[in-house]
Amino acid sequence: MQPILTIQDLNRFLETDFSEVHHDGKVFEVIATGPGYATMRIEPGERHLRPGGTISGPTLFALADITAYITLLAHIGPVALAVTTNLNINFLRKPVLAPLECTCRILKLGKRLAVLDAAISQPGSDDLVAHATATYSIPPR
Amino acid sequence: MQPILTIQDLNRFLETDFSEVHHDGKVFEVIATGPGYATMRIEPGERHLRPGGTISGPTLFALADITAYITLLAHIGPVALAVTTNLNINFLRKPVLAPLECTCRILKLGKRLAVLDAAISQPGSDDLVAHATATYSIPPR
Amino acid sequence: MQPILTIQDLNRFLETDFSEVHHDGKVFEVIATGPGYATMRIEPGERHLRPGGTISGPTLFALADITAYITLLAHIGPVALAVTTNLNINFLRKPVLAPLECTCRILKLGKRLAVLDAAISQPGSDDLVAHATATYSIPPR
Amino acid sequence: MQPILTIQDLNRFLETDFSEVHHDGKVFEVIATGPGYATMRIEPGERHLRPGGTISGPTLFALADITAYITLLAHIGPVALAVTTNLNINFLRKPVLAPLECTCRILKLGKRLAVLDAAISQPGSDDLVAHATATYSIPPR
Repeated sequence: MQPILTIQDLNRFLETDFSEVHHDGKVFEVIATGPGYATMRIEPGERHLRPGGTISGPTLFALADITAYITLLAHIGPVALAVTTNLNINFLRKPVLAPLECTCRILKLGKRLAVLDAAISQPGSDDLVAHATATYSIPPR
Repeated sequence: MQPILTIQDLNRFLETDFSEVHHDGKVFEVIATGPGYATMRIEPGERHLRPGGTISGPTLFALADITAYITLLAHIGPVALAVTTNLNINFLRKPVLAPLECTCRILKLGKRLAVLDAAISQPGSDDLVAHATATYSIPPR
Repeated sequence: MQPILTIQDLNRFLETDFSEVHHDGKVFEVIATGPGYATMRIEPGERHLRPGGTISGPTLFALADITAYITLLAHIGPVALAVTTNLNINFLRKPVLAPLECTCRILKLGKRLAVLDAAISQPGSDDLVAHATATYSIPPR
Repeated sequence: MQPILTIQDLNRFLETDFSEVHHDGKVFEVIATGPGYATMRIEPGERHLRPGGTISGPTLFALADITAYITLLAHIGPVALAVTTNLNINFLRKPVLAPLECTCRILKLGKRLAVLDAAISQPGSDDLVAHATATYSIPPR
């Protein structure tokens, strides 16, 4: 299962077709892709915090969802208007205000549905900050 | 199971203790609370869209998560620093760029864990836009 | 959203086309159906227990999954070979060794996917024992 | 994160303290354990099938849940009466009537909650049959 888009293709897609991702600054970036996976990085700011000084849940959700979407597009191309149908996320440890990386793996790539998992951590630590599983509906091609 | 905080208390809490929610404009508002539930409303803007002109997944996630958190605080008070441990969300229909309302119900309020569900719809329609279930860990009181 | 199968139709379907459900005794029974919902009942036995004397997780999962499947068939007919693609279950309270009832509601009935939620309780109590959300893939008709 | 129980300990625990698992024949067996993980195997029979000739959802749920429970006990000892609070399962491919293996990894082992994921496949294939994430509540020790 080889990706058909490069890191550059994917970052360009984010800018041109999914610019809402960058609406409050360019904090998301695709940093790796390979057979069945892709990795994104976010540089969070003050607006991504929640009470207690940790990164907010919606920020972690967005990172998992966008990375899963990018991972899927990396393998099926940028044409399809895939939509998230389900996302289940477990928040495991409180991240500090520092960059986060999310790696998504394709668990299944069917004709109508794709299922991926997402592991979020902070560089320098093996501990997971959050783990998610997501399903995408793929429109008829 | 009666709420111990009023709508005004809850909106004040959002402003004073959870101001990140309003970081890009005051779009979230508590509009109802009662035995075991609370309702919030969001007035989404352009920055809440995703490709296809629909409200983004992270926006719907944030609405479900914040409403569940507010529903919990309405019933246990604003002291506790509860944290989301799990959130499962199903995206059911594509919302248009118009207000959304989310009603959360407490399914269980234990000493250590609370479980709530969240139903998101758009005023004027009975169809659900999204449905979520969330678990919160409650610190020792 | 009216059901097109009766309680009798659904119980007959369980016996003829889904007899595995009754493999260790006829403990599952459809007891109600109506617009967008159906209710099943299980009479659990010793084999449905787990350490601590409570009903096992797999038994509650089976009750939620079978009720959701029956609710879907009640509304689309017994032809389709629908399959569960995702099920998320929260275990809320420990049930005692006594009958359980599960009511499922259709949250969305699309052409390709249906989403339902399931609430499990024990007659005589308003407290939920478990709550689940499930997605079914519907084959082309 | 080293296991403190052996494969033999774990299989003995299943027989003595969790004999319901074997109520209709000894089909479940622990076959491996190591740092942060354990693997179980099931030899399914006719009673584990569902319409379409594939292994039933409740059987796959039970395999994921029991393996996660065993993986947790392998690392904290057999004393604790841990209970599943949430389990989210994605059904990815239809398994044939042949043995299934499930490997669970600990994603987080906290004082009060543990989160694990579970990957189910059939020997001889790399494709996942199902993938689950589960949360267990650990009683005060």
